Amino acid sequence: MKVDLLTVEEATQAVLERACALPPIRLPLSMARECLLAEDVSADGDSPPFDKALMDGFALRFADLRNGVGTLRIVEELYAGSLPSRSLMGGDASLIMTGAPIPEGADTVVMIERTRRDGDRVLVEDPSVRPGGNILRRGREMRAGDVIVRRGETLTPTRLGMLASAGRPSPLVVPAPRVAIVPTGDELVESNQVPGPGQIRNSNAVVLEALVAGAGAIPLLSPIARDDPEILREALGEGLASDVLLITGGVSAGQRDLVPATLMGLGVERVFHKVRLKPGKPLFFGVGPRRGEKPGTLVFGLPGNPVSGVVGFLLFVRPALDLLAGRAGRPLGLPLYPLTRAFVHAGEKPTYHPARRVEWTGRGPGTVGLEPLASAGSADLLTASRADGFALFPAGDRAYAPGDVVGFLDLG
Amino acid sequence: MKVDLLTVEEATQAVLERACALPPIRLPLSMARECLLAEDVSADGDSPPFDKALMDGFALRFADLRNGVGTLRIVEELYAGSLPSRSLMGGDASLIMTGAPIPEGADTVVMIERTRRDGDRVLVEDPSVRPGGNILRRGREMRAGDVIVRRGETLTPTRLGMLASAGRPSPLVVPAPRVAIVPTGDELVESNQVPGPGQIRNSNAVVLEALVAGAGAIPLLSPIARDDPEILREALGEGLASDVLLITGGVSAGQRDLVPATLMGLGVERVFHKVRLKPGKPLFFGVGPRRGEKPGTLVFGLPGNPVSGVVGFLLFVRPALDLLAGRAGRPLGLPLYPLTRAFVHAGEKPTYHPARRVEWTGRGPGTVGLEPLASAGSADLLTASRADGFALFPAGDRAYAPGDVVGFLDLG
Repeated sequence: MKVDLLTVEEATQAVLERACALPPIRLPLSMARECLLAEDVSADGDSPPFDKALMDGFALRFADLRNGVGTLRIVEELYAGSLPSRSLMGGDASLIMTGAPIPEGADTVVMIERTRRDGDRVLVEDPSVRPGGNILRRGREMRAGDVIVRRGETLTPTRLGMLASAGRPSPLVVPAPRVAIVPTGDELVESNQVPGPGQIRNSNAVVLEALVAGAGAIPLLSPIARDDPEILREALGEGLASDVLLITGGVSAGQRDLVPATLMGLGVERVFHKVRLKPGKPLFFGVGPRRGEKPGTLVFGLPGNPVSGVVGFLLFVRPALDLLAGRAGRPLGLPLYPLTRAFVHAGEKPTYHPARRVEWTGRGPGTVGLEPLASAGSADLLTASRADGFALFPAGDRAYAPGDVVGFLDLG
Repeated sequence: MKVDLLTVEEATQAVLERACALPPIRLPLSMARECLLAEDVSADGDSPPFDKALMDGFALRFADLRNGVGTLRIVEELYAGSLPSRSLMGGDASLIMTGAPIPEGADTVVMIERTRRDGDRVLVEDPSVRPGGNILRRGREMRAGDVIVRRGETLTPTRLGMLASAGRPSPLVVPAPRVAIVPTGDELVESNQVPGPGQIRNSNAVVLEALVAGAGAIPLLSPIARDDPEILREALGEGLASDVLLITGGVSAGQRDLVPATLMGLGVERVFHKVRLKPGKPLFFGVGPRRGEKPGTLVFGLPGNPVSGVVGFLLFVRPALDLLAGRAGRPLGLPLYPLTRAFVHAGEKPTYHPARRVEWTGRGPGTVGLEPLASAGSADLLTASRADGFALFPAGDRAYAPGDVVGFLDLG
């Protein structure tokens, strides 16, 4: 019965080896937020494409002013989107609005607050004005051909704006992974139903859906699949169209736990089925058949106990989603925090125990510590819902004292 | 011309005074992620609703074992979702799967790995077994009537799961704010078009859409509105159906800047129109008429220069979105970082200058510092797209040395 009992580290390694960035596709900018760009994008023209006013004011010839003062003749009014029809001669000025092209002959813009208009004349009075003031020269931001966003960069809001301004409404990006979620089990009813005897409401799928969305991936939630070979085969087969398939329930050693056999029948290669950890030991991981250009689906069979499912997601699924999206993985080690109270751990498996982050003054003010919460175990989602994550107690019996330092698997 | 020139702090205060949590609505769980719960939710039944197996194994009477060893008769097989039909008598055991109800008479579950089945008999051998082992008692997680998620708590994945298990598929929550984005300006073309002379592509709306989504709100992007009173009136009027209306362009002092007048005509009360900052001085803020039960739309007219729009969003819109969603505001002060290189600031307005977070060794290893980037000003989105945020240089001329400390307005 000790087959496949990998350590968490070995199991993580086995998952990450099989997760690589998804093949790039073109997505509209509004769907490419936080995606990784998969091509270099160059400017298709100079920006600005013309010398341009940075302020509302008057475009003029600097030489026409004396210490910033002069009275000029208004020859034209220029708005953003309009084109100058006149070149400025000595003594001329054009009213100009932010973003409008500078007329030929002008070399300076004086902001409107430093001017006074009087019919077709304008009195300019701005001792601080400098030649070239308030003009953004053509190509000053970028030149045609300059690479403006590089392959491998994350599409932040401002980079999306750069792609828009370069005329790339559908850049090539690594897409967010699509994650099918299939809840299984005869004991489950949906959250809007009243459970009969021996039944409980399906909470796992809701938790996973939100965890997947929070990891930047796209959750695709299926209805509950009964413990029936035909129904399971259809539900899991559909799930293999996605980049990742998360199944809850049906993976422990029970005779009705049909999931692993059904997956194998669908061509899923089993990588491991159990991991040495608590809660969440019966965790299945495999890889589906290749999907044309796309790699095989990463298939995770998570235990039906809700807390086990959450811990399995955080340890194995979340890092895999990062890699599928082309992001560098999170550091594998857990950050360490001091415990704020005594805790006794017993057992031969490393244990992830719900804990809250709290202020701890045991070593002076301002330290963050972990408070392990009283929990009824792997079915106690309520306690997990009051936790910030899970404190890791390594295998072996030990009485921990306040201040002893342990790793922390963050829910956030 | 100095009307309404508030400081950033005064303007922020004026915005935040007018932003309060939106009226709660019922949302399905899949749309309520990260929303604030607006009601206390209680358990509608005990959980678990019955004594339940935490492992696959055999349910039995502890008294039938001697030092954890015994041979028992298998009287039934129990799966999750099935109901026991037999009470256990002395010498009886039932095969039981994780999640299944414990049969009457049984008080202990021995995990399957510590048993060996032989026809209708099972040999149990688990010296570590304790009475009550591997059973989660009815109501151990929660009792009917217990408050399980409280009003004011954020709906994290595990809390969403608790609502599902309590039969609340549509909880009352503060919804994510809906944010209409209306780009204006005759000079704009969409990002899939080739700009004509004097034109540029619309990048502001794309940047704002992503900033809004990143702040957890729902962006609703309009097509470009021309500088025409009728078109503007229609576009802005539609935008007033949303919780927030963001307009880009059309708010400086130019004669064609029709936005403030159009807004006033639609019943928007002007709160301020300019703020003492660079870039982004011409920033309009007002409040629309009440919308039935809902408060008036918060209306922000952001300048058309892209970097000005970004700074205006970070300073004024993002904190307002937090309050509308019922979240506590971010702290108003900016975190301080040392500059990694010399920088000269000149001018009478506090200036937000694009800067990158970099490692700085000027005071020993491991310090984070700010590197101000060479920027062509408020129209230079490219430089902003390479920045992590904006270093704040207060009003007044000053030559900064490496190590001098300034505030940082984070893009993330």
